[in-house]
Amino acid sequence: MNKTKADTLLINAIVLTMDEAFTVINPGAVAIENGTILAVDRQDQILQKFTAQIIHDCGGKALMPGLVNAHTHVPMTLLRGLADDLRLDVWLLGYMMPVERQFVSPDFVKLGTKLACLEMIRSGVTCFADMYYFEDHVAQATAEIGMRAVCSQTVMKYPTPDAQFFEESLALAREFIQKWKGHPLIIPSVAPHAPYTCTEEILRLTAELAAEFDVPLHTHIAETAQEVESARDEYGMPVVPYVKKIGLFETKALAAHCVHIDEGEMNTLLHHNVGVAHNPSSNLKLASGFAPVTKMLELGLHVGIGTDGTASNNDLDMFEEVRLAAILAKNVSNDPTSLPARTALAMATRIGAEALHLSEITGSIQPGKKADVILVDLNRIHNSPRFMRDPNNIYAQIVYATKSTDVSDVMVDGKWLMQDHQLLVGDEAAWLAEAQDYAARIDAFLIQREKSVLSKLVAIGNATEEESFEVQAKVRIADAEPVYEALEKPEIEVLHFRHYHEYDTYFLFPDPEQGTLRYREDEIIDPAGQVIRARYRLTMIGPAREYQFPREVLLSRSRFLAPANHSLRFYREYFKPTSEVPVVKDRQRWRLLFRGTEFYLNLDRLEQPPLGYFLEVKSRTWSKRDAEHKAEMAAGLLEFLGASIHERVSKDYLELVLEIQPT
Amino acid sequence: MNKTKADTLLINAIVLTMDEAFTVINPGAVAIENGTILAVDRQDQILQKFTAQIIHDCGGKALMPGLVNAHTHVPMTLLRGLADDLRLDVWLLGYMMPVERQFVSPDFVKLGTKLACLEMIRSGVTCFADMYYFEDHVAQATAEIGMRAVCSQTVMKYPTPDAQFFEESLALAREFIQKWKGHPLIIPSVAPHAPYTCTEEILRLTAELAAEFDVPLHTHIAETAQEVESARDEYGMPVVPYVKKIGLFETKALAAHCVHIDEGEMNTLLHHNVGVAHNPSSNLKLASGFAPVTKMLELGLHVGIGTDGTASNNDLDMFEEVRLAAILAKNVSNDPTSLPARTALAMATRIGAEALHLSEITGSIQPGKKADVILVDLNRIHNSPRFMRDPNNIYAQIVYATKSTDVSDVMVDGKWLMQDHQLLVGDEAAWLAEAQDYAARIDAFLIQREKSVLSKLVAIGNATEEESFEVQAKVRIADAEPVYEALEKPEIEVLHFRHYHEYDTYFLFPDPEQGTLRYREDEIIDPAGQVIRARYRLTMIGPAREYQFPREVLLSRSRFLAPANHSLRFYREYFKPTSEVPVVKDRQRWRLLFRGTEFYLNLDRLEQPPLGYFLEVKSRTWSKRDAEHKAEMAAGLLEFLGASIHERVSKDYLELVLEIQPT
Repeated sequence: MNKTKADTLLINAIVLTMDEAFTVINPGAVAIENGTILAVDRQDQILQKFTAQIIHDCGGKALMPGLVNAHTHVPMTLLRGLADDLRLDVWLLGYMMPVERQFVSPDFVKLGTKLACLEMIRSGVTCFADMYYFEDHVAQATAEIGMRAVCSQTVMKYPTPDAQFFEESLALAREFIQKWKGHPLIIPSVAPHAPYTCTEEILRLTAELAAEFDVPLHTHIAETAQEVESARDEYGMPVVPYVKKIGLFETKALAAHCVHIDEGEMNTLLHHNVGVAHNPSSNLKLASGFAPVTKMLELGLHVGIGTDGTASNNDLDMFEEVRLAAILAKNVSNDPTSLPARTALAMATRIGAEALHLSEITGSIQPGKKADVILVDLNRIHNSPRFMRDPNNIYAQIVYATKSTDVSDVMVDGKWLMQDHQLLVGDEAAWLAEAQDYAARIDAFLIQREKSVLSKLVAIGNATEEESFEVQAKVRIADAEPVYEALEKPEIEVLHFRHYHEYDTYFLFPDPEQGTLRYREDEIIDPAGQVIRARYRLTMIGPAREYQFPREVLLSRSRFLAPANHSLRFYREYFKPTSEVPVVKDRQRWRLLFRGTEFYLNLDRLEQPPLGYFLEVKSRTWSKRDAEHKAEMAAGLLEFLGASIHERVSKDYLELVLEIQPT
Repeated sequence: MNKTKADTLLINAIVLTMDEAFTVINPGAVAIENGTILAVDRQDQILQKFTAQIIHDCGGKALMPGLVNAHTHVPMTLLRGLADDLRLDVWLLGYMMPVERQFVSPDFVKLGTKLACLEMIRSGVTCFADMYYFEDHVAQATAEIGMRAVCSQTVMKYPTPDAQFFEESLALAREFIQKWKGHPLIIPSVAPHAPYTCTEEILRLTAELAAEFDVPLHTHIAETAQEVESARDEYGMPVVPYVKKIGLFETKALAAHCVHIDEGEMNTLLHHNVGVAHNPSSNLKLASGFAPVTKMLELGLHVGIGTDGTASNNDLDMFEEVRLAAILAKNVSNDPTSLPARTALAMATRIGAEALHLSEITGSIQPGKKADVILVDLNRIHNSPRFMRDPNNIYAQIVYATKSTDVSDVMVDGKWLMQDHQLLVGDEAAWLAEAQDYAARIDAFLIQREKSVLSKLVAIGNATEEESFEVQAKVRIADAEPVYEALEKPEIEVLHFRHYHEYDTYFLFPDPEQGTLRYREDEIIDPAGQVIRARYRLTMIGPAREYQFPREVLLSRSRFLAPANHSLRFYREYFKPTSEVPVVKDRQRWRLLFRGTEFYLNLDRLEQPPLGYFLEVKSRTWSKRDAEHKAEMAAGLLEFLGASIHERVSKDYLELVLEIQPT
């Protein structure tokens, strides 16, 4: 009989194919040619039908598809254990974002990715879905190591380590997809980070990009109750219908978390074939809620399992996640038969690949799929003995008692990456030493940083970052009358008006990089001149970023806003400024449309010190293009109001005051 | 300077003392003499003050107290993975209990304990609280291996592998405690299994035993909502006040689970210094609920962490439990700052020892305590890098990212049990092979068993086991009048009366060991002779156990009762009996007190076949002593009713019918 030639035969294994029928073959064997599975069958059948130069004895271990980590941020391995057990806003604004902005670079991303790949290989992962910055470097490092991944370039409204504004990251995403599309291991993808970190425009443009290139779109959906509540407030609907309306699901979408969605939303996801990545450890650790996994599976959604990033897990151990997914679902649904071991393992393999829109390529041991397989030792003290009465016993053994460290061999695309617990790729020791260097530098940075004004602001709670771009044109005027007259003209539509008396106290700090903190008491005045109520706010104004804009009226700088629930005395003692500057003014404030573009207009009379009248045109936005458009319009608006842009005062009130009364 | 002599100095370690102040010393060292910690300090200080023959370099690893597994059933390692993802009643009655009754022996218990000890040593556990049968053999095996344990002999109302009735297991517990009290490693203890598996008498007697010897009392409390609901129904109060009233907490009590308790109950536990064992994996896997851990800790309860048995976990990995306890509490309390890593690790060490009433002996690295310590590698790819900015970073690194397999060395009572991942005790390979033999035999038994009538009864739900002892005296009478007259006499107090028309169908099976299944339709008749309503029940009557009783009226055999929600036709097809016997009778049934003792009295008229009148005195009980007392009284009652015990019919109705109409 003529035998078919293969590259490699894997024999003497308990083969868990993880196919739709959950076929288990013992003793089973697999024939592989050029990275692709030719056949899987009983060992005697395979040996009868195939010849191969390499016949690999699996020693009776379980041979199964490599695990699919359906959602992670791999470079964050370098930030593992940086800050834990914190409130989400403190963790994110106080630690993650400042550290990322300071340290995340192509070098950082490559090192973190390489370490993450080794950690995942050691624990039996062969494929993952990543979302981070400098994704081109994530892809490079992953391809070098030889793992399979959906790599998603992040786009969001906030400045990121790789882009000062979203137009830049969107362009990065396009280049990235063009470069990697068709690569044998890397599936490029775009990641609008989340509905609440993106504008509607970002969501629409990223969806269009993903559709144009027919690549996956990776995002976070309904991770927290807060997110859903905000969506209801802002858009009058929950998160899923909101993003659906924008067209986000007209793509091969992968939605991480989906903790707070109802059955209607699940049906929407199902209808659009959206893959879901369930991240049980991350959801627990960040107190995000309990995802309705049993319900989603029942409806037929493709729910994969992910580790999320190591800053919220804190490792990439898919065995832990699979076990947790299985046992957590039982308690959440109050039914110990929910999410049985077999289903949980399918979520981490075949169903996970479906969630990533890669089910043609990986996720099960079936002819035609790529040889992404692992060997798992089922004879360890912690997972023995083995019962065989029930065909489901072996899945329970793997899910409930086997550890990631029982994975001994890993093959991706037909190539061994680990054999007998020995990594065949990378330089683990050298890379760990580099990671420790980063940790030392980050420690030093944070020790400084923890003394920073922003950190202290974040620590007292509810701080939010404001739009990156500030359009601001201010002119000194002698008389307010021409302004009132101009506001009556048809080119102006007043949307809202308010009259304030503003008592500002600026806290100054020795290091100008710290920025300035403003404590503002706003008295709101009614038409009769009576105070209706007062509000109290803290604003952290960072130094302007070094970025060249075509118009002087355009600035880019960070601003963080927080409600002030304590007294000025409290904040004085808490922030310990080196000096203080009081500024008191009367402000009339209009929100208006000028030739269809929205602006704020302030008509201010400085009382302390008594510097006279100023007219300010203001706007903030996340979009650079929008900012530039508004900068053009602002000059026109000032002129329309009877002021001349040539009278422009380039300093802000604090600077003006400091000129005449230096501290 | 004169140096103090020690046996061993452990140097070059990051010492996590886990003392109340959470002292960490780096580089730190520990001096040990005769199994006891003499000193813990900076390495230079220890080397300056002590000399020792053995100076052990810890290679910069973390040196910390061994973990305390606060609740487990160690011999169940042999049943790991036997049956998973099942309804609790199916799991317990269909698999665990039949297998335990068939296989659990001194040999089984010793082998399972030894394997559990090795598994726990490998994962950094040095002390555990066990609850099982043949606890003397658990203690022996544990002491031989050299681990520390609270070993608790189980007492419950059901027949157990080591006792046919509770008086027997209570006697075993007393002997066991007398034998082991004062042992350097083993703390003997008694375990009334749970309030719902014990009678009030068992709870009282075990509490008295524990108090008499001043040993811990180990029990399960409020594990499921069902348990609490039943307690409210039966005793008019939740579980904690019920057992408190009986005196269960007048002991050094250790209460496992405490999932469904309110703040008042927590305060009761606190007041009585009851230790709590939280078992997060088990609670999730069995869908028991979310224990209010954060609240318990807040009130100051000593909450340790346990793995529970490997049949509901499915391993003994305390690193997994600690991590899960920490992250689960955050989501349950909707606060990511809940149960920070440091507290979680304390629960698994110092606080766990407090829960076991062993805080003088173990749980932290402090002078005077025993040297129960482990070395943990913090430089693995999955737990690196290490941040040092915050003193809590190291706890997060251990709790959130370190695995049990990172434990390299384990010392109990000053003696190394594992060094550099090599076990220094036991014969792991040989014992695993023995365990696999057990698994094969259990598989074979269950394959048979799954065809059994009882298994099929359990599978259809809501089966419960009835009291073990049956007192039954039956006599044939010619006339009912004398009975009615006797019932009017003052020696009798009628508590309840009911009139039935009973249509029984007995299903017979070829193997007499299978017992008999009775489908009963009870029509309840009002005084006017009208049928009020009907009820349908299945009763599985096992063969009488081979146990010698002094009185013939006393039987011991298993009876399982289940509501019958389906038709007779359904059960006929489902159970496939080889033959059927119908019996129809009219029954008048009294619950009465005869000279203060409660009995059921049946006055039956057999209609099909027409066998005439029978008088039956019946009672069931869990207690052998109570059964014997009632057996004495039953004969007296029959005589009092005008019947003679010498007319006694020793056969039941089925047997009588089969005599005249053999199938």
